[in-house]
Amino acid sequence: MTDEKREQVHEQRTKTDSVQDSMERREIALHFCREEKAEAEFAHPADVAEHMENLSLEKQVCLMQHLSPEDAAEALAEMDEYARADILRNLDWDEAASILAEMSPDDAADVLDELDEDHRDALLRYFEADDAEELRTLMAFDPDTAGGVMNTEIIIIDHNVTADQAIMQIRREIEDKEIPYYAYIVDEQERLVGVLSLRNLLLCRPRTLLKDEVSSQSLISVVFDADKEEVAHQLAHYNFMAMPVVDYEGRLLGVVTYDDIIDIIHDEASEDMLGMVGAGQDETVDTPWMESVKKRLPWLIINMVNSAFSAWVVSLFEGSIATMAILAVLMPIVANQAGNTGQQALAVMIRQLATERFDRKKSWIAVWREAKIGLLSGLIVAFLVLVAVFLLTHNLLLAQVMAVALLLDMLLGALAGASIPLILKELGRDPAQASSIFLTAITDGAGFFIFLGMATTLLL
Amino acid sequence: MTDEKREQVHEQRTKTDSVQDSMERREIALHFCREEKAEAEFAHPADVAEHMENLSLEKQVCLMQHLSPEDAAEALAEMDEYARADILRNLDWDEAASILAEMSPDDAADVLDELDEDHRDALLRYFEADDAEELRTLMAFDPDTAGGVMNTEIIIIDHNVTADQAIMQIRREIEDKEIPYYAYIVDEQERLVGVLSLRNLLLCRPRTLLKDEVSSQSLISVVFDADKEEVAHQLAHYNFMAMPVVDYEGRLLGVVTYDDIIDIIHDEASEDMLGMVGAGQDETVDTPWMESVKKRLPWLIINMVNSAFSAWVVSLFEGSIATMAILAVLMPIVANQAGNTGQQALAVMIRQLATERFDRKKSWIAVWREAKIGLLSGLIVAFLVLVAVFLLTHNLLLAQVMAVALLLDMLLGALAGASIPLILKELGRDPAQASSIFLTAITDGAGFFIFLGMATTLLL
Repeated sequence: MTDEKREQVHEQRTKTDSVQDSMERREIALHFCREEKAEAEFAHPADVAEHMENLSLEKQVCLMQHLSPEDAAEALAEMDEYARADILRNLDWDEAASILAEMSPDDAADVLDELDEDHRDALLRYFEADDAEELRTLMAFDPDTAGGVMNTEIIIIDHNVTADQAIMQIRREIEDKEIPYYAYIVDEQERLVGVLSLRNLLLCRPRTLLKDEVSSQSLISVVFDADKEEVAHQLAHYNFMAMPVVDYEGRLLGVVTYDDIIDIIHDEASEDMLGMVGAGQDETVDTPWMESVKKRLPWLIINMVNSAFSAWVVSLFEGSIATMAILAVLMPIVANQAGNTGQQALAVMIRQLATERFDRKKSWIAVWREAKIGLLSGLIVAFLVLVAVFLLTHNLLLAQVMAVALLLDMLLGALAGASIPLILKELGRDPAQASSIFLTAITDGAGFFIFLGMATTLLL
Repeated sequence: MTDEKREQVHEQRTKTDSVQDSMERREIALHFCREEKAEAEFAHPADVAEHMENLSLEKQVCLMQHLSPEDAAEALAEMDEYARADILRNLDWDEAASILAEMSPDDAADVLDELDEDHRDALLRYFEADDAEELRTLMAFDPDTAGGVMNTEIIIIDHNVTADQAIMQIRREIEDKEIPYYAYIVDEQERLVGVLSLRNLLLCRPRTLLKDEVSSQSLISVVFDADKEEVAHQLAHYNFMAMPVVDYEGRLLGVVTYDDIIDIIHDEASEDMLGMVGAGQDETVDTPWMESVKKRLPWLIINMVNSAFSAWVVSLFEGSIATMAILAVLMPIVANQAGNTGQQALAVMIRQLATERFDRKKSWIAVWREAKIGLLSGLIVAFLVLVAVFLLTHNLLLAQVMAVALLLDMLLGALAGASIPLILKELGRDPAQASSIFLTAITDGAGFFIFLGMATTLLL
């Protein structure tokens, strides 16, 4: 899709919006659709999806109706969740069902999950009984777990066949399977006993029994209720293309593939950054804005309460400030600088928890590392501030109070910034959630108290 | 590696540290090494690497010497860059070279890049001439580009062969290649003309010429100097397992694979979160702490200068504060609340720029979305504050000033938070870098000015 084409689409859309008569509008949409369709058939489904997100709902629906179910399914799988639920609600039942039937079961289950229950049940009636059953099973898994993101279209081979037989089986099945790069070897009880890549199989001697081939493998898999972020860590750690998912008896249920992992890692990074400042963890620029207000307001109000606490600390020293207004000038510097120091430590720790497997000892050593960083940066910044405040006010005692308060608050900020995510993690909470808000409360409150308290004691 | 084993390792290490005599220490290390080696041979290289990072350098080196070059190479490829450069420096030349020779060329080039030039040249002398040449070529690519992260061990097939011949070629080459899942089809000038997965090839009719098979493909590739984050976006967008890298004439140079992309996405998320608050973008808890101080200090000092600007704004109203110290109590609330509002907008925009391909129009629409969110949240919070301040101070005018200042500063915070990353992007800078620091400067400075200014005009 070129930029000019995009422009043209937009113009056409704007034009369309001003047309009053709905019949006329429909005809333009239909004409537009045929043109779009011709282009969409040659584009990659991901590009079709991206393009569709810029169209009006009417045109999205129209385009979906005109594409082949396979193309429509691929494009729909790539689209934003808000957009695709809207499209499905506006398609006829049988149209929607025929598109869903072309999707891989895990994608179809995700899309169905976004619809309300009545709509979902109605659509499932258009599926064959066992397909509908499979979709219901997939929807039953918690979407934040391995089971919720796994693919079920995998090649499963009995461990009693030979390498050559396995290759023949793969050739037969390969057309229907989404992920034909690994073959999963199971025993009589459907328990996973090994994993072989196509490459491994081609390198085997033809008559080798698979059970002999995999007997020395140290099998790595995850249980269906493992947190999906944990699965992402595991897959990234082992550089696997797909991670097998099993039940508690070790029976193979499906696999989580690298492309889902890439999405999970993107989502996790977004959740951390958004959560840290109290925005909705799944917010994007496509989230309806009122939705965002609802998600952020509670945290803004908590931040307000925290600020009120800091303000109360300041109010304890109202008398000192009335006598010496310069204190009010300098106090935000202390709080702000300690806040920034703490945020640096916070960011490093949150990323540590997000990218590596949790190691309690290593994490607390990292807190100690941040304390050293905070102390040395604090000493340097405090010295600079000592000089600057003295030069500006010619009040050495004030400069000293300011420098000491800054040093102490920066050290506290570093310790708090590094510890908050760990404490949240140990409490079983999301390490990032609102961490920046709590950090600011600590560095503001403590900064004001230390600075104003010392000033009141020593200067007045 | 179980937890008990880890504990044991640690105990052993602590014990070792207290042993004074270096001979005795070496013997213990050697004994330890043999035990470790036995275990390491059955573990996944990624687990060996993780375990090694917890050992002393002496033991790391010893273990490397006792593992087979293949196992050592795989573990080294997975290790942290600081740790592995240290290990290589402490191995004999020929030991180091034999381990590097077992690594895939892109990994070996990365490791060599971490050594100083003399050491690197000395090691390269142990390689065969054309292997050394290939490593030098790989090292010449900017590590932040497609060329810098690409793999060169790929299967390249001439477009004039048939599907059957191609499968035979793959069977011959598959043992040596890291990524045998795609075959890259090139013409007589080595220009990439198509990509076929093993699956596609197995589905072809045997006599089909590859050039006919790929003629209708819309080829997606990146040029070697494309930013690696852009490559990550492309690969995630198209759900590819590997993205071909070509030169400006379209000749195939290599591929960037999903496992490198996962690392790039992790790094990008870290860079954004760390950069936002002015920490070093490549910092982890493994970075030497003095290094971290050096990276963060410049931003702390910039933050200091920004704070000094806000303090100067406050100093303009020193007289008002001396008369009415409650102003000093309330003013941090305004600044803090607007700062938090701005950070929420900032986080959403930075993630938007990190996860989607840049779309200027869509981005500025998102700024408008943030303005609406800021306005509505501002109205609600301002109303609550109006009531609270009135109840506490019984001063309606003060409560009104506070509410209006809060609303204006929150709206400004939302606009600034949403715009800063876009402006940085348009200037060709990293959208995240120090954005939180600049945002705070704006919301603090403006908040103090609006609140104290209105109070001075209306209340005094």
